[in-house]
Amino acid sequence: MGKGRLEAFSDGVIAIIITIMVLELKVPHEPTFAALCERWPVFLGYLASFAFVGVYWSNHHHLVHTVRHVEPRIMWLNLHLLFWMSLMPFVTAWLGESRLAPIPTFSYGVIMLVAGIAYLFLQLAIAAQQTDPRHREAHKRQQWKGYVSLVGYATGLPLAWTGHVFVAMGIYVAIAIAWGVLDRGLAGE
Amino acid sequence: MGKGRLEAFSDGVIAIIITIMVLELKVPHEPTFAALCERWPVFLGYLASFAFVGVYWSNHHHLVHTVRHVEPRIMWLNLHLLFWMSLMPFVTAWLGESRLAPIPTFSYGVIMLVAGIAYLFLQLAIAAQQTDPRHREAHKRQQWKGYVSLVGYATGLPLAWTGHVFVAMGIYVAIAIAWGVLDRGLAGE
Amino acid sequence: MGKGRLEAFSDGVIAIIITIMVLELKVPHEPTFAALCERWPVFLGYLASFAFVGVYWSNHHHLVHTVRHVEPRIMWLNLHLLFWMSLMPFVTAWLGESRLAPIPTFSYGVIMLVAGIAYLFLQLAIAAQQTDPRHREAHKRQQWKGYVSLVGYATGLPLAWTGHVFVAMGIYVAIAIAWGVLDRGLAGE
Amino acid sequence: MGKGRLEAFSDGVIAIIITIMVLELKVPHEPTFAALCERWPVFLGYLASFAFVGVYWSNHHHLVHTVRHVEPRIMWLNLHLLFWMSLMPFVTAWLGESRLAPIPTFSYGVIMLVAGIAYLFLQLAIAAQQTDPRHREAHKRQQWKGYVSLVGYATGLPLAWTGHVFVAMGIYVAIAIAWGVLDRGLAGE
Repeated sequence: MGKGRLEAFSDGVIAIIITIMVLELKVPHEPTFAALCERWPVFLGYLASFAFVGVYWSNHHHLVHTVRHVEPRIMWLNLHLLFWMSLMPFVTAWLGESRLAPIPTFSYGVIMLVAGIAYLFLQLAIAAQQTDPRHREAHKRQQWKGYVSLVGYATGLPLAWTGHVFVAMGIYVAIAIAWGVLDRGLAGE
Repeated sequence: MGKGRLEAFSDGVIAIIITIMVLELKVPHEPTFAALCERWPVFLGYLASFAFVGVYWSNHHHLVHTVRHVEPRIMWLNLHLLFWMSLMPFVTAWLGESRLAPIPTFSYGVIMLVAGIAYLFLQLAIAAQQTDPRHREAHKRQQWKGYVSLVGYATGLPLAWTGHVFVAMGIYVAIAIAWGVLDRGLAGE
Repeated sequence: MGKGRLEAFSDGVIAIIITIMVLELKVPHEPTFAALCERWPVFLGYLASFAFVGVYWSNHHHLVHTVRHVEPRIMWLNLHLLFWMSLMPFVTAWLGESRLAPIPTFSYGVIMLVAGIAYLFLQLAIAAQQTDPRHREAHKRQQWKGYVSLVGYATGLPLAWTGHVFVAMGIYVAIAIAWGVLDRGLAGE
Repeated sequence: MGKGRLEAFSDGVIAIIITIMVLELKVPHEPTFAALCERWPVFLGYLASFAFVGVYWSNHHHLVHTVRHVEPRIMWLNLHLLFWMSLMPFVTAWLGESRLAPIPTFSYGVIMLVAGIAYLFLQLAIAAQQTDPRHREAHKRQQWKGYVSLVGYATGLPLAWTGHVFVAMGIYVAIAIAWGVLDRGLAGE
């Protein structure tokens, strides 16, 4: 299988995920600022999820670029990651409409956590393909970010559950920003 | 016609089909786990259809890769397949909202069956283009999977109709998993 | 401007148009065949529009493939065509929900007519770019199809207006089928 | 990072933004012309936003084509631009549904202004990459258009706020037309 088509399909799905979230932003019924501002939890969720998907897109790009041979295993792990990412518009809408209620915020964190695990699985499978020791090294340097993120997501879960939703969302957003800032590509590129 | 643009258009349509299904996942009105879990038939349908479309994407990729000349016939058979696949979000939503009622489950199976037939038509047309006997052989080895799947889908129909919806869905999901596991590409690649 | 990106953007927009129409297929509230069949005008409209957009995609592909230089004029005429095509999901939904009432069927025909005119404008601009007389000849051979279609769409309009909606829809569908059957590409390819 | 994938992802997102706006065009409940025409503010907003996104796509294409090296900074500025553009379907729907009420028209202008600023940031970052003085010159010639547009958007804001919504919309549409007419590409291409 050509790497190009795997990239193109993934990019297509990620581009659609990041864009259709706007369809969940329901228009206020009153043409006033009060009605617009009253929706702040919806906009906050939209912003956080846009940043998340954008960060995933960039990192996914760097990662898939180092694939050496598109084996079925890589393809299914990639589809597995896309499945969890495809649920982001759903949890984002629930988060916003419930105005950051504990259970929806917890569910949001669960999707973040599971998507992070799916990403790590894909990363490990691609790292195992590398024959050049320098490339292996580059992949290993990236993996700690994944492990730290998983710990962060997991920490947010009990906080969200017990109603500390802003602390939990703060942790999630901080992880997204950290990935964005640390995004330097893989040395193998 | 360039094979590249046929692939790109098909990939685009399949990427949109697999992703817009999430828009049919309506957000629970209550921010509770009970409200979320109460929707399990919707999530089950989403998961099954995501797996189906993913499997089609992968197999479609291998298949179209062996096209030798994009004749109008190939193009129309491909559009025919995409038409039936485009109805998947519709039957998936009906399946979920009716909580796996017999008629929606039956309709879901009909779309699976018809999409399977459309895939087989496309496969036969592409196999007929092959001049190298080894490639013909490779295509023939793939076709039994299509025939067995059609028998499976057809078996599910009367089961769904008579209310054995879980047996029917089990057969459909088993077919998707089997295609995923057997996905080894075509020798001609 | 690269022809490749013009093709890719057009393909993307057309792929989205053809696929999001399924979101207008509202799920029946009852899990019965009667409720499904009662929706036949919606499915008829969906089928007709899917065929139309598919035919446009194929012909658009052949046409844009012969562009020699992507001048701003070509780009704007292409965007103009995509604008009218983007209204197809809207008129298709209106056609189906009103159960082929005269005014929605008339509006459907108007969009077909205007999209046909937009296609002809694009075709004339691309034909004017051809320097090789054989390519000019090939473009001319295609243009009569456009003119005949416009006459067909225009004929359907008063028929739809006066309530002969099935005759009008029959003409529209016949035009789509004719384009599909006559689709042989341009000799310049 | 490859420039090709940045272009492809941006094109995908822009193609989805321009196309999903049609999903906000709700079908009239009555099958009459009166019901259709009564929706003119919705169609006006759709037309304006389609033109805007089309113009952005064309100019974005020319701009990204001159990127010399896809650094993280370029990528984040591009994602930043796409974020504001992704809100266009939302403000367009609000504009139309409120029938051009002052606050929604003001909000529409704010998104235009912020997207314009985001575009300018991206442009400056890409201009700073150019080593060839002729290319720098070409970028500088483009930048005055951006500054004039920002002044135009800003002028529209108090007008919309104080209820002169048609004057404000006239300014916004005039800016889109001017960009379309002045679209000549960058000399560096």
